[in-house]
Amino acid sequence: MTDATLGFEIRAQLGAARVGRISTPHGDVDTPAFFPVGTQATVKTLTPDDLLSIGTQGILANTYHLFLRPGAELIERLGGLHRFMAWPKTIMTDSGGYQAFSLGLALEHGVGKIAKMFPGSAEAPARPTRKRLARIDEVGVEFASHLDGSRQLLTPEISIRVQQQLGADLILAFDECTSPLSDYDYTRAAMERTHRWANRCLDAWTSTHQGLYGIVQGGAYPDLREQSARFIGGLPFFGMAIGGSLGRSKDDMHHVLEWTIPLLPPEKPRHLLGIGEPTDLFSCVERGIDSFDCVAPTRLARHGGLYTSTGRLNIRRTEYREDVSPIEAGCGCYTCRTFSRAYLRHLFVAEEILGYRLATLHNLHFILTLMAHIRQSILDGSFADLKRDFLARYRAPATPLGASPA
Amino acid sequence: MTDATLGFEIRAQLGAARVGRISTPHGDVDTPAFFPVGTQATVKTLTPDDLLSIGTQGILANTYHLFLRPGAELIERLGGLHRFMAWPKTIMTDSGGYQAFSLGLALEHGVGKIAKMFPGSAEAPARPTRKRLARIDEVGVEFASHLDGSRQLLTPEISIRVQQQLGADLILAFDECTSPLSDYDYTRAAMERTHRWANRCLDAWTSTHQGLYGIVQGGAYPDLREQSARFIGGLPFFGMAIGGSLGRSKDDMHHVLEWTIPLLPPEKPRHLLGIGEPTDLFSCVERGIDSFDCVAPTRLARHGGLYTSTGRLNIRRTEYREDVSPIEAGCGCYTCRTFSRAYLRHLFVAEEILGYRLATLHNLHFILTLMAHIRQSILDGSFADLKRDFLARYRAPATPLGASPA
Repeated sequence: MTDATLGFEIRAQLGAARVGRISTPHGDVDTPAFFPVGTQATVKTLTPDDLLSIGTQGILANTYHLFLRPGAELIERLGGLHRFMAWPKTIMTDSGGYQAFSLGLALEHGVGKIAKMFPGSAEAPARPTRKRLARIDEVGVEFASHLDGSRQLLTPEISIRVQQQLGADLILAFDECTSPLSDYDYTRAAMERTHRWANRCLDAWTSTHQGLYGIVQGGAYPDLREQSARFIGGLPFFGMAIGGSLGRSKDDMHHVLEWTIPLLPPEKPRHLLGIGEPTDLFSCVERGIDSFDCVAPTRLARHGGLYTSTGRLNIRRTEYREDVSPIEAGCGCYTCRTFSRAYLRHLFVAEEILGYRLATLHNLHFILTLMAHIRQSILDGSFADLKRDFLARYRAPATPLGASPA
Repeated sequence: MTDATLGFEIRAQLGAARVGRISTPHGDVDTPAFFPVGTQATVKTLTPDDLLSIGTQGILANTYHLFLRPGAELIERLGGLHRFMAWPKTIMTDSGGYQAFSLGLALEHGVGKIAKMFPGSAEAPARPTRKRLARIDEVGVEFASHLDGSRQLLTPEISIRVQQQLGADLILAFDECTSPLSDYDYTRAAMERTHRWANRCLDAWTSTHQGLYGIVQGGAYPDLREQSARFIGGLPFFGMAIGGSLGRSKDDMHHVLEWTIPLLPPEKPRHLLGIGEPTDLFSCVERGIDSFDCVAPTRLARHGGLYTSTGRLNIRRTEYREDVSPIEAGCGCYTCRTFSRAYLRHLFVAEEILGYRLATLHNLHFILTLMAHIRQSILDGSFADLKRDFLARYRAPATPLGASPA
């Protein structure tokens, strides 16, 4: 289903961890790779030049958001998403299902803070209301736009068509993403529907220069995960993604990876949806993940949560008021080469846009640099040392992944 | 009162217009010059690198804001404002009086939209209340902080001390800025107080590497303006600024310049406070103004008002939804070299920070490039041609200067 511009090559392996290269019509992506999230056709606050300057190889954009605004037809008429946002390198798009579902389901379950249920993978809707917003059936999902309340429909066929219109290099199958609150029976029914939708996505997938990823579902239930990994892994997708609820803890997430990855075809790239805290990169890469996307580095940055080698700091804190040191001594990013913590704190306290921008640049530089070090450590056999040294210094944050550190 | 690092040299003259060079401890400023406004120690959305890339020679920062947050003592302890915000070139600071007064006075007069009364010169306070916030007497102005309501005092001596702590290269005398609603008697009394304060500022001015500008007041009254120009012009200031109410129209503003500039010492640089729409640059330069500061380019940008050679466009408008052209064909700024109007419109409609940034970069590039062309045209004698050609194409915006184009 793919032409010569698309491919995946494994260059080195160390246990289950591997270094590879995804080829796309917009360049190569050295894996393991991290894709910053550009929800609305912009990685918030940054230009394409900024992203290139910190080594970004690809970004993930959200089909749900772009489908609603400005619309996929418009982006197609203007030459596609790459041209629209002036991003010359690889773009991955998600299927839109996650946002359409999470909006409706979270409200159905009476959970106010959607971001806590579905950490990381996408921006939470702006103003959830109590009205049930999404309806799922075999055809697809009908939902109310978070922008204007209009009724909208996404199906496997529509999602693939929209992603073709956007022109992403790597696209995702339309799946139903269950929450940790879903019970076994519901999770199984949703998984089986996802499997039927997977075949419909493959049928709709006619663009030979887009690599389509299937998505393994099954929640935190080992037999469902194994069943889904076998089913999705047996279909002729370009790549394999692991989605849905990854449980309630890091351990749960690791179990999901351990149940599924050994059942996936080893020659295909594996993407983990919505994950990307620094410690996760080690634990998931060593279990065989090749790529990540996550809003954590960018969203945390806009809340003043800044990564350092000793953990995450909250730049708003009074202790940084007169701190002339950079966020991290020795960091090569523009923010750290140029500004003090005291100045960044001032920008955040004064709610200056430049603060969000400088923090975003730093956090993405941190993650992308860490990812590059991980790649190198797999190549030269020092992955275990790098992981040990990193984890010995890095104090995991007390706030949950994806939540605001405020 | 100034050391060898400070000076002003006139290099060419064409009628009343002149090309000169202000020397400061942080480099030269070729005049006529435009200073972007960096209210809170940041030109909103932009880095120092951005500002340098578009030819910024100097910026103006607001003493009132920095006095309240993060505080001038803190900035002094951290090495001064240049180091704090990592801006290597010239900084001018205002005296803080304008904001302290305008906040109190505008409310006293029951005028809700402060920005309309005091266009351009500084950011309007965020949340005005009905309480009278400022009290003026011979000593200075007592006002309530717009941040926390705390009572604060600014006097000529405090203002000069704060500006010394900030370490700006060019500083302004503490004056009382009257509004167009002030009558003759009040405007005269305020002017006379400003004159007494001018002498107190000179007495307090002990830093030989800071150039102090006196400020001509007198509202829209010719005899008061002449009296103030003679008085301030006769004092040993480094430079001369024209402040206060410039009337209610462009004609009024031009009259104020015509009454005052011929009475000012020709060898000193002349700064016009708070003005800087494209057409103003021509009309004020040809009357003898050497430098400008204005929030219009940056504030308008954040509202989607973008300068072009044919006038200002509002990028939010539906007509730009599918417009693949840049803001201005042939413009050399990063925004125009990289993005379409359609993409910029999307960013504004989606309220994406990147939109404010790209628009700010364009508007400042437009103004600074125009200023450079004006300088060149004075040198080569083509100023009248440049002005005629520019005004023939440029359609002045219908919305008032400094007001939101929404």
